[in-house]
Amino acid sequence: MERIDKREYAELRPVRITRHYIKYPEGSVLIEMGDTKIICNATVEEKVPPFRKGTGEGWVTAEYSMLPRATEVRNSRDISRLKMNSRATEIQRLIGRSLRSVMDFSLLGEKSIILDCDVIQADGGTRTASITGAFVALADACHYLLEQGSIEKMPIKSFVSAISVGIVEGIPMLDLCYDEDSRAEVDMNIVMTDKGEYVEIQGTGEKAPFSSETFNQLIELGSIGIKQLIHNQKEVLGDLSKLIGG
Amino acid sequence: MERIDKREYAELRPVRITRHYIKYPEGSVLIEMGDTKIICNATVEEKVPPFRKGTGEGWVTAEYSMLPRATEVRNSRDISRLKMNSRATEIQRLIGRSLRSVMDFSLLGEKSIILDCDVIQADGGTRTASITGAFVALADACHYLLEQGSIEKMPIKSFVSAISVGIVEGIPMLDLCYDEDSRAEVDMNIVMTDKGEYVEIQGTGEKAPFSSETFNQLIELGSIGIKQLIHNQKEVLGDLSKLIGG
Amino acid sequence: MERIDKREYAELRPVRITRHYIKYPEGSVLIEMGDTKIICNATVEEKVPPFRKGTGEGWVTAEYSMLPRATEVRNSRDISRLKMNSRATEIQRLIGRSLRSVMDFSLLGEKSIILDCDVIQADGGTRTASITGAFVALADACHYLLEQGSIEKMPIKSFVSAISVGIVEGIPMLDLCYDEDSRAEVDMNIVMTDKGEYVEIQGTGEKAPFSSETFNQLIELGSIGIKQLIHNQKEVLGDLSKLIGG
Amino acid sequence: MERIDKREYAELRPVRITRHYIKYPEGSVLIEMGDTKIICNATVEEKVPPFRKGTGEGWVTAEYSMLPRATEVRNSRDISRLKMNSRATEIQRLIGRSLRSVMDFSLLGEKSIILDCDVIQADGGTRTASITGAFVALADACHYLLEQGSIEKMPIKSFVSAISVGIVEGIPMLDLCYDEDSRAEVDMNIVMTDKGEYVEIQGTGEKAPFSSETFNQLIELGSIGIKQLIHNQKEVLGDLSKLIGG
Amino acid sequence: MERIDKREYAELRPVRITRHYIKYPEGSVLIEMGDTKIICNATVEEKVPPFRKGTGEGWVTAEYSMLPRATEVRNSRDISRLKMNSRATEIQRLIGRSLRSVMDFSLLGEKSIILDCDVIQADGGTRTASITGAFVALADACHYLLEQGSIEKMPIKSFVSAISVGIVEGIPMLDLCYDEDSRAEVDMNIVMTDKGEYVEIQGTGEKAPFSSETFNQLIELGSIGIKQLIHNQKEVLGDLSKLIGG
Amino acid sequence: MERIDKREYAELRPVRITRHYIKYPEGSVLIEMGDTKIICNATVEEKVPPFRKGTGEGWVTAEYSMLPRATEVRNSRDISRLKMNSRATEIQRLIGRSLRSVMDFSLLGEKSIILDCDVIQADGGTRTASITGAFVALADACHYLLEQGSIEKMPIKSFVSAISVGIVEGIPMLDLCYDEDSRAEVDMNIVMTDKGEYVEIQGTGEKAPFSSETFNQLIELGSIGIKQLIHNQKEVLGDLSKLIGG
Repeated sequence: MERIDKREYAELRPVRITRHYIKYPEGSVLIEMGDTKIICNATVEEKVPPFRKGTGEGWVTAEYSMLPRATEVRNSRDISRLKMNSRATEIQRLIGRSLRSVMDFSLLGEKSIILDCDVIQADGGTRTASITGAFVALADACHYLLEQGSIEKMPIKSFVSAISVGIVEGIPMLDLCYDEDSRAEVDMNIVMTDKGEYVEIQGTGEKAPFSSETFNQLIELGSIGIKQLIHNQKEVLGDLSKLIGG
Repeated sequence: MERIDKREYAELRPVRITRHYIKYPEGSVLIEMGDTKIICNATVEEKVPPFRKGTGEGWVTAEYSMLPRATEVRNSRDISRLKMNSRATEIQRLIGRSLRSVMDFSLLGEKSIILDCDVIQADGGTRTASITGAFVALADACHYLLEQGSIEKMPIKSFVSAISVGIVEGIPMLDLCYDEDSRAEVDMNIVMTDKGEYVEIQGTGEKAPFSSETFNQLIELGSIGIKQLIHNQKEVLGDLSKLIGG
Repeated sequence: MERIDKREYAELRPVRITRHYIKYPEGSVLIEMGDTKIICNATVEEKVPPFRKGTGEGWVTAEYSMLPRATEVRNSRDISRLKMNSRATEIQRLIGRSLRSVMDFSLLGEKSIILDCDVIQADGGTRTASITGAFVALADACHYLLEQGSIEKMPIKSFVSAISVGIVEGIPMLDLCYDEDSRAEVDMNIVMTDKGEYVEIQGTGEKAPFSSETFNQLIELGSIGIKQLIHNQKEVLGDLSKLIGG
Repeated sequence: MERIDKREYAELRPVRITRHYIKYPEGSVLIEMGDTKIICNATVEEKVPPFRKGTGEGWVTAEYSMLPRATEVRNSRDISRLKMNSRATEIQRLIGRSLRSVMDFSLLGEKSIILDCDVIQADGGTRTASITGAFVALADACHYLLEQGSIEKMPIKSFVSAISVGIVEGIPMLDLCYDEDSRAEVDMNIVMTDKGEYVEIQGTGEKAPFSSETFNQLIELGSIGIKQLIHNQKEVLGDLSKLIGG
Repeated sequence: MERIDKREYAELRPVRITRHYIKYPEGSVLIEMGDTKIICNATVEEKVPPFRKGTGEGWVTAEYSMLPRATEVRNSRDISRLKMNSRATEIQRLIGRSLRSVMDFSLLGEKSIILDCDVIQADGGTRTASITGAFVALADACHYLLEQGSIEKMPIKSFVSAISVGIVEGIPMLDLCYDEDSRAEVDMNIVMTDKGEYVEIQGTGEKAPFSSETFNQLIELGSIGIKQLIHNQKEVLGDLSKLIGG
Repeated sequence: MERIDKREYAELRPVRITRHYIKYPEGSVLIEMGDTKIICNATVEEKVPPFRKGTGEGWVTAEYSMLPRATEVRNSRDISRLKMNSRATEIQRLIGRSLRSVMDFSLLGEKSIILDCDVIQADGGTRTASITGAFVALADACHYLLEQGSIEKMPIKSFVSAISVGIVEGIPMLDLCYDEDSRAEVDMNIVMTDKGEYVEIQGTGEKAPFSSETFNQLIELGSIGIKQLIHNQKEVLGDLSKLIGG
């Protein structure tokens, strides 16, 4: 079976990460993975949530949203329904947890960094691309604080990237596009650091339960993708990447 | 290191599943796992969401909530903040996906079953206990439809249960209570069928990333718990359990 | 005419009050009156509403809600409609007023006690059972403060209980179950202290206006029920009851 | 003790009911009781709530609101808090029940009449004045339907009026103004028909419980006020009043 | 073509401005222009929005709303839809800007004045009548502060009034009533001071674009109306008007 | 006085209009005016608002929003405040009116076209750039319908563009950037067709009222900008532009 865009099963879609995309934020990235396009903006705020007050430690949080016409069919805006989209709620919690796992919050001090991930075009893998792109925006925002003298050392301990893998018509595939994702029997999102450790693994067999062999196969496939994505992050960050995990 | 309640590392807390707990619902279960207590009510409705209309197939969905004082500190109700709790949103999506994975929706026909999981006392593992308890309520609701003659065959393909596992102070443990959960470095929720297949695996290393060895250890530990929970489900369902997956 | 559950016209349903039902709250009661079952949790907070600040006096407030399937037909949750149920609004105001009427707020000091009344199974009389049960939870919460040394004297001046009465097919009846309530021509809720004084009387003749004779008959009938309920409260509170109104 | 406006204890404030106040509604009344001023507009709609569909019977409902500056201190609008005022919720349910009690819904047919009671100046007794004024607007709306030929007979069985009574510094008083109301130990609202029957009685002793003697005294005092108010309603409705209860 | 109410094309409807309409607000006006009737209440608050804090300057803001039955067809309340009416949002922003343009905020000091414009009967031109009426209420509120000694000088620099003009069936007309407004090809709202300067001009040709000749014609026509309205404002304010712009 | 970006007073910022920006919508445009960047997506829906049903005519509506970090300071999302931003409400009403003014709705038939204008970077003039960009997306969406055979003739009667003008430090200027806009004494938005007719004129002198000479000067200046923008629209639409107003 040939993939819809003729990729190898273990091949990522073309990845492009553009830094400094929007001029105002402390970090701003446009990440493109095939036809999936997401603006990831990092905002530094000099305040922390109540449970962090007085601890000397900071916090990282994320918000995820899609433009109404990022998809084939138009979705009405959250505000017209007065309800936060429940899929987006789940996704932004995942992005937040993933980025927090690589932060040294005592180095950040009592500041918050908000990552706004706004999908302008969706073609599968938006939650994982958000993590990969937001990491770069987060690095830029931390670097901005360092340059400003607000912090003394980069508060990021590792690189982190994310990718989706899945079983489509019985075949394990890397980086599913929307068409593949909607036909997948098993769907997995993997978040991993440059040290080869997992930050988050979410595997779902809503259409059909899966065995542990399948599971291990998918994990392996995901690692291949993650390695390349972290390579991409390092390339686009250039010298700044040397300050991470130092 | 001794566990707070002196359990073995691979030991579940005492499990009690009470059927027919509330008199009105088509299925109603009180599940208790240690001090965690959840009422799981199943409601049958003769309508389906728009994307199911005209397909001849049904749907299963879940809602999850906690009484304000199910926890040490009182949480204000969703309606006073006018916002659905985001953790609850994530959880109810997980419960819904888990239960749908074992349904044969063509046997159910164009009906919906709603599983209301209301936590009256929370001591860790509420999302997994909700799945385990809601499955029994779902079985009772399907059986009610069978008895009524609205369906011809039990539309449930497998048993499904869920359990949490985690690494606490370096030690893999089964079925974390709240105190353990809040100290865990790695936290995993496993949803599995009686055929030993996975429906959902969610592993999170927010405090510290984890290796694949850790991951496999936890998966294994989880399987032990799941097997016992499915045994409990079968016991409490008695003869009815023979109609499942038949 | 025989009552649906064969009770005498002036007979209460079986009453059961269980203290310490949920482990976290400062006061926690399960009250059962026939098939009506309500969890009443009391939470102490070290803050008061704006209009009490600096007065040295505390406040008592109540919240009332039903689980979606506490009734024959499932009710959607407030949060899905983004609107507080208007019947619940009316009821929680009544519960709050009733409990405040027996408090000595200067003895309580600048603290708030919130009574969460969550109906898990409804079969008529939920608002009055909430008052009767919440009173016991309130007593436990005040006793907890006394034990803790936060207050010096029990701040409760009297016992208070509530009951419904009504005219069904021309006959005055005590403690209506749902079936009777839905057929009642006149419906009255009575809140009364152990000193035989009224705190609140609400009589409604939506289906048919009523005379003052009817009214007096119902009041009398209500007193019989109240007396027994206060007896029940005293019994379940044991020695603690001696501290009330002292 | 002299009353603040020098009235007798059993004396109403000056009552003025102006019909046809706003030009668009099917019934429109400005009711003034002393400084309390309320616009009561009746709107006929050719639809009924779901539970009435197909029954051949209609429905009456009410909405109650205050202009932000109807009171000494400005109240923010419901929409800025996104929450319906809970006191207003309680009041509009009372107005609805009171008016429904005198309707013959089979004569109305499957129509709804909505009574909007908007308080433009509040000086105590707004809920009872709303009922008294809304009744006249309701009568006008029904008469409009009769004139139009949409119904064949006035669907109103009785006149209904409402008044507040209370104990202020130990003295029973009729028709409390805001100053008296805020000092009252016991507060009661009475809704009564021209046949001397009660539709609703709500007595509250939040500051101090009350005896049944007090209760009966207040009821008696209320009847005096109700009689005069129904006299006012009849006077302002003129010939139309002969069609009521016919 | 004769106008529906036989007015000249350049003639205003009868204008009536009643001061001290509601007893509580610091300024309260009922403005009537033909059948359009609006209550404009001014409330002084001793606080300012965040962006004014510490500047020594005050702020003026407006809220606009219509009673449900101010129009031919009943509009549901904002709170039942949980959404602020979007037309009202636009209008209250216009009223606020218009009134702020004539304020000297350093003379007001750090205070806010809120103008509540509640339409009780709508027959076209409600936004412009709100401005004209609210100006008088604002003047009264400022005068109240002056009398109280809270400010030293009237903080109002000019009179401001507003009027609608439009092209109906090709003819430029002043002060459109609802019937005319709904048939207008071009619709313009003009806000002007007593010095003949414009504060706001909004011209809309939704049905048909318009030329600059049309535009100038309408502006001219508007000035005629504004002059008369400012004359009315001066008349009703009497001596107080001498303190404005002094 | 030199402009911040060295432009002439009557000079537009560099304009770039990119068609087919997002792949899913029926029309999709990225418009850039200097640093202001807006995605304008047009969606065709086969349904109309209630007031259009059965008329054979269609409708055009707009939604306007900004990404949280389109500005110097981050704005929280509407959904976190549960309130539609009031400035955005005003703007999207303006965009909708402007585009509707050039539509022939009988040629469109009973269809709706929704224009989503999402500002990804804001540097002044976002409302006018939204109109100019959305017009091109609207043309593409109509052309799509024509190609599909759903309509027989382009339903657009004229080109329409919009621009801001203002008085900054006494000098009339075209196309204000954010810095100029925030210092402007008078601010005007002009919407105009290729026939030189006005669709909408909104002039505001919140900081200082303005004379009719000022007004006419600004109108003239605006016309210069509009002409160039319509030239840009024609260029980017190429042959398609010949079908407009045909």
